[in-house]
Amino acid sequence: MRHTISVLVENKFGVLTRVTGLFSGRGFNIDSLNVAPTQDPSASRMTIVTRGDDATLEQVVKQLNKLVDVLKVRDFRDGEYVDRELVLVKVAVHSRSRAEVMQITDIFRAKIVDVQPHTLTIEITGDESKTGKFIDLMNAFGIVDLTRTGKVALPRK
Amino acid sequence: MRHTISVLVENKFGVLTRVTGLFSGRGFNIDSLNVAPTQDPSASRMTIVTRGDDATLEQVVKQLNKLVDVLKVRDFRDGEYVDRELVLVKVAVHSRSRAEVMQITDIFRAKIVDVQPHTLTIEITGDESKTGKFIDLMNAFGIVDLTRTGKVALPRK
Repeated sequence: MRHTISVLVENKFGVLTRVTGLFSGRGFNIDSLNVAPTQDPSASRMTIVTRGDDATLEQVVKQLNKLVDVLKVRDFRDGEYVDRELVLVKVAVHSRSRAEVMQITDIFRAKIVDVQPHTLTIEITGDESKTGKFIDLMNAFGIVDLTRTGKVALPRK
Repeated sequence: MRHTISVLVENKFGVLTRVTGLFSGRGFNIDSLNVAPTQDPSASRMTIVTRGDDATLEQVVKQLNKLVDVLKVRDFRDGEYVDRELVLVKVAVHSRSRAEVMQITDIFRAKIVDVQPHTLTIEITGDESKTGKFIDLMNAFGIVDLTRTGKVALPRK
């Protein structure tokens, strides 16, 4: 099963390595991860997407809670939440395909953020099913480069 | 000095811990980091924002290049690039302040992604100066929760 785990940590040296070490130590591969400061400069929030056995993951969550620099752990398995990721994708275009790429970009409410003679760089945000579909469509034109943030999530309530 | 480093890695177990270990081993604190798959499912791209001495960082980049699972390292210090981050921010609102928050959201071309009786959850994307200004403005209303992806970057050329 796929899990999204949000970990609020103290913004201290080495915390990132300790948290990722807990996952790799238990054999969990991390699909995506991000970490950045919050509104409180002394705290950072990590969002980890991982796949694996529920019971083992519960053990990992318990161990996370025991780390000194971990302030709060949330497993987004339960309850409603909003999740989003951002993807930058550079697509190969020529004079005939450019209009078509622009149309699809428009339909997805994505944004063209850079134009070069033979490429367009597009920013798209959404949940993974939306960004995934957009990437699939762009594949037909030729993806030159792609970078994605991995998802972030907030509970609705 | 602030650096943005992009590392293309093989999507293998434990790579993340090895890469972050190189930074923490040299005393570099990571401001933000994200890792997610690319268009090639066997490769993931990490984007790391860090601060510190240029000469030491060059050593870290050299060591990164030596890791078996590292395919490519790019230091975005030089050259032109497009960078973006995504922030989800949940802001406290009441009947009078809601309209004001919505106006600011509109000016920043941000999106309201969830509405609750006493909060609005807003998605904003942009470079760090734009997202930073938006967060500062929202602070006046009261930020209940905030999560950011950290930046991703692609070279223009």
